[in-house]
Amino acid sequence: MEAAKANGPKKEQNQRPVIPGPTNPMVTPLLSDFYQFTMAYSYWKAAKHNERAVFDLYFRKNPFGGEYTIFAGLEECIRFIANFKFTAEEIAFIRASLPKTCEDGFYDYLRGIDCSDVEVHAVPEGSVAFPKVPLLIVEGPIAVVQLLETPILNLINYASLVSTNAARHRFVAGKSKLLLEFGLRRAQGPDGGIGASKYSYIGGFDATSNVEAGRLFGIPLRGTHSHAFVSSFMSPDEIVEKSLKSYDGSSTCEDFVSLAQTWLSKIKRSHSLHGIFGETNQSELAAFTSYALAFPNSFLALVDTYDGHEVDAFGIGTYLVTCYAQAALGCVFKLVEINNQPRIKLSEDVSKVSIPCRKRCFRLYGKEGYPLVDIMTGENEPPPKVSERVLCRHPFSESKRAYVVPQRVEELLKCFWPGSTDKAREELPPLKDIRDRCIKQLELMRSDHMRRLNPTPYKVSVSAKLYDFIHFLWLNEAPVGELQ
Amino acid sequence: MEAAKANGPKKEQNQRPVIPGPTNPMVTPLLSDFYQFTMAYSYWKAAKHNERAVFDLYFRKNPFGGEYTIFAGLEECIRFIANFKFTAEEIAFIRASLPKTCEDGFYDYLRGIDCSDVEVHAVPEGSVAFPKVPLLIVEGPIAVVQLLETPILNLINYASLVSTNAARHRFVAGKSKLLLEFGLRRAQGPDGGIGASKYSYIGGFDATSNVEAGRLFGIPLRGTHSHAFVSSFMSPDEIVEKSLKSYDGSSTCEDFVSLAQTWLSKIKRSHSLHGIFGETNQSELAAFTSYALAFPNSFLALVDTYDGHEVDAFGIGTYLVTCYAQAALGCVFKLVEINNQPRIKLSEDVSKVSIPCRKRCFRLYGKEGYPLVDIMTGENEPPPKVSERVLCRHPFSESKRAYVVPQRVEELLKCFWPGSTDKAREELPPLKDIRDRCIKQLELMRSDHMRRLNPTPYKVSVSAKLYDFIHFLWLNEAPVGELQ
Repeated sequence: MEAAKANGPKKEQNQRPVIPGPTNPMVTPLLSDFYQFTMAYSYWKAAKHNERAVFDLYFRKNPFGGEYTIFAGLEECIRFIANFKFTAEEIAFIRASLPKTCEDGFYDYLRGIDCSDVEVHAVPEGSVAFPKVPLLIVEGPIAVVQLLETPILNLINYASLVSTNAARHRFVAGKSKLLLEFGLRRAQGPDGGIGASKYSYIGGFDATSNVEAGRLFGIPLRGTHSHAFVSSFMSPDEIVEKSLKSYDGSSTCEDFVSLAQTWLSKIKRSHSLHGIFGETNQSELAAFTSYALAFPNSFLALVDTYDGHEVDAFGIGTYLVTCYAQAALGCVFKLVEINNQPRIKLSEDVSKVSIPCRKRCFRLYGKEGYPLVDIMTGENEPPPKVSERVLCRHPFSESKRAYVVPQRVEELLKCFWPGSTDKAREELPPLKDIRDRCIKQLELMRSDHMRRLNPTPYKVSVSAKLYDFIHFLWLNEAPVGELQ
Repeated sequence: MEAAKANGPKKEQNQRPVIPGPTNPMVTPLLSDFYQFTMAYSYWKAAKHNERAVFDLYFRKNPFGGEYTIFAGLEECIRFIANFKFTAEEIAFIRASLPKTCEDGFYDYLRGIDCSDVEVHAVPEGSVAFPKVPLLIVEGPIAVVQLLETPILNLINYASLVSTNAARHRFVAGKSKLLLEFGLRRAQGPDGGIGASKYSYIGGFDATSNVEAGRLFGIPLRGTHSHAFVSSFMSPDEIVEKSLKSYDGSSTCEDFVSLAQTWLSKIKRSHSLHGIFGETNQSELAAFTSYALAFPNSFLALVDTYDGHEVDAFGIGTYLVTCYAQAALGCVFKLVEINNQPRIKLSEDVSKVSIPCRKRCFRLYGKEGYPLVDIMTGENEPPPKVSERVLCRHPFSESKRAYVVPQRVEELLKCFWPGSTDKAREELPPLKDIRDRCIKQLELMRSDHMRRLNPTPYKVSVSAKLYDFIHFLWLNEAPVGELQ
């Protein structure tokens, strides 16, 4: 500890910057699929475990019938990766779970691993993202990287889904309405609830009812009261403390209950209101009066009937937080390179064919400032340049291609975990900045990509060189049938 | 601590039995809606906070178009309730979140509360349950009970939904198939994943891929390997360690790789197989051979094509764990009594009218051993008796009623948290027993309630006395319009 301090307050003993662990302490290296461990053993047994592998994390289809996705969950992934280390208890459990034939040396190996030799490039959290373009590129020893697969997918899939759902709600509601996330009670488990609050906020919600999410992330809290509160009162007679101070404290109404009753009588007698207050329920009046006495400067009452009134705030629960319309995003994690050899996953379903190689990804912007197309290139190709014409090809459809002269070129993935390289590490921004990024990126999009009905797909492409390479590899890998 | 020990190993200082906290440490008294705190303040300000209230927790409609629901999540609720206590940090956060006008005394009050004065009756976890019948009855000081509402709903809604989903998968698959929960990567957050594993197991699944769930709950673990494992191999030449011991260790095959190649050549030459092995991919062969060497006694390979083969195990992910077909169960928490006064919630939608009063609930079984009907009675009514005819009435539909002569009467709710009373506390059973209970209860059900297409609704009723009381109260509460 002394040695660590000597290195400065922001570094650990091993010189890596200090990043706190995941928000949920249940996110450990065991929050993973069992097969990651059987594979890790098999790699180790075959002495392949340190082979350098590159994996792409991406999704194949935008959710909710839309044409965009908000990428979220990155901060939790980096916090997980930065603190990835097995405890003795965890290793004991893995040993007890694997077959007895597994050799002891494997557990010594597990004891030693961390992510110091893993490198993570990612799209910044809160970005607008599209199918096939990697959100994360994870490079490192194959056994270690595969152990990260399941927790990373878990941390990103739901986060991105809820952020996207929230952004879609915001798009429909418009900028001026207040959007409140009220879904904790119906969320899929405790941290389904906490995640929903955090990621709805990123997607453009203004506040949450979830107190713990407020505490953890600084999200504004909102709430009124429930019907139980109303029905817990019998009549105004039971209100004992009746005095109400004015806002500035300069005067006091000694009997606010009588004042409310007096006003009710006046209103009842008013002909212009057609006697609609004649049925006022005394227990409801008592509840509202009491609530007003408790919150003299911030009275907000729950009134179930809203016909005709203008709505300026929406509290949304179940449909937002469980993503009722589509409860899962299908991010996948695919091997694209091992030992500098490209790998491709073939499939009879062309949408499931993976795009091989370690890649760089760019967003090309047009004259009007809109993003025009995302393009993936091989790692060592010259990147697209402003004002230079570049051919963008559909990765699988030969005839779909377009020339683009970008007015701005944005590299999409940045280094968020440099591992043992000396690359600079992108800082993890505060939640507010992630939310701002999301809102700004959405504003930049051309409106036809965003509309709810028949949105135009945003184009995702590969460079001419990468196109040729994909198809060379494809033909090389796919078996050639024999006609007899 | 010494004093606590002197009271015996299973008791705390305050004589309550020791129950561990919730599995997820994020389940704290702050995992709640903000309005629970504004209401608590308002109750406290009106000196109503200690009024004795009774709340029913129930759902209104079975999920997935079915006619039954598995109740789950109780253990986590009781663990939460048993350890309910605010920390100084939590109180400081609430103080910072509420308006400045709130008085200091409220925070002293919060500091002092726990659930020692709360009483919880519940249906045992893993039971088959039906709409309107309370799953939990929570009684106690109104402010405290309302602070429990959101976390309890959160812990029960998703748990019951996934258990039910799993039970429905089991019903379709039949008893003989192995059902494996493989959904962690697509689950709604980390503990959506852990909850899915636990509650799928209760609903009748056999195992999970989720290692952390295996560690926490002792659920059997299963897995094969991923496609990345297959594509990480180039050819059998890279396999260095080639020897394979026989199961009993009596003999060793020195070169298993050559043995596999020899057999492949033989099979290729076989005319009866029509040359279908001619296209065997060498990297796939290398991967399978290597995996077999790593797991000599438990080799299980991932083969994507399964046309024609008999399937004896199913690994189910996304659709199971996110409950894709219906992503939320709508449990509600309604005030049914305060200060011994019954409360009813009226609604234009009759399915949303609550059933007032503190109740007892029974399941009546017929001659064939099937459950016939659930009946709710007032707390002080004589319970239904075996061989005695009882009138069961639909709670809201006047003409729907039936006489039942039960062959067995089962009281549904038991005391799981006695608070300060001297009632016996039901023990929290181990997970395996909860799962057994679920499987046994499902087997007891008449098959027409269980079928997927047009299942018969199971009848839920009230006693004649409770029926009359509901409708007396309803007429009393509902405003009478005036024709002019």
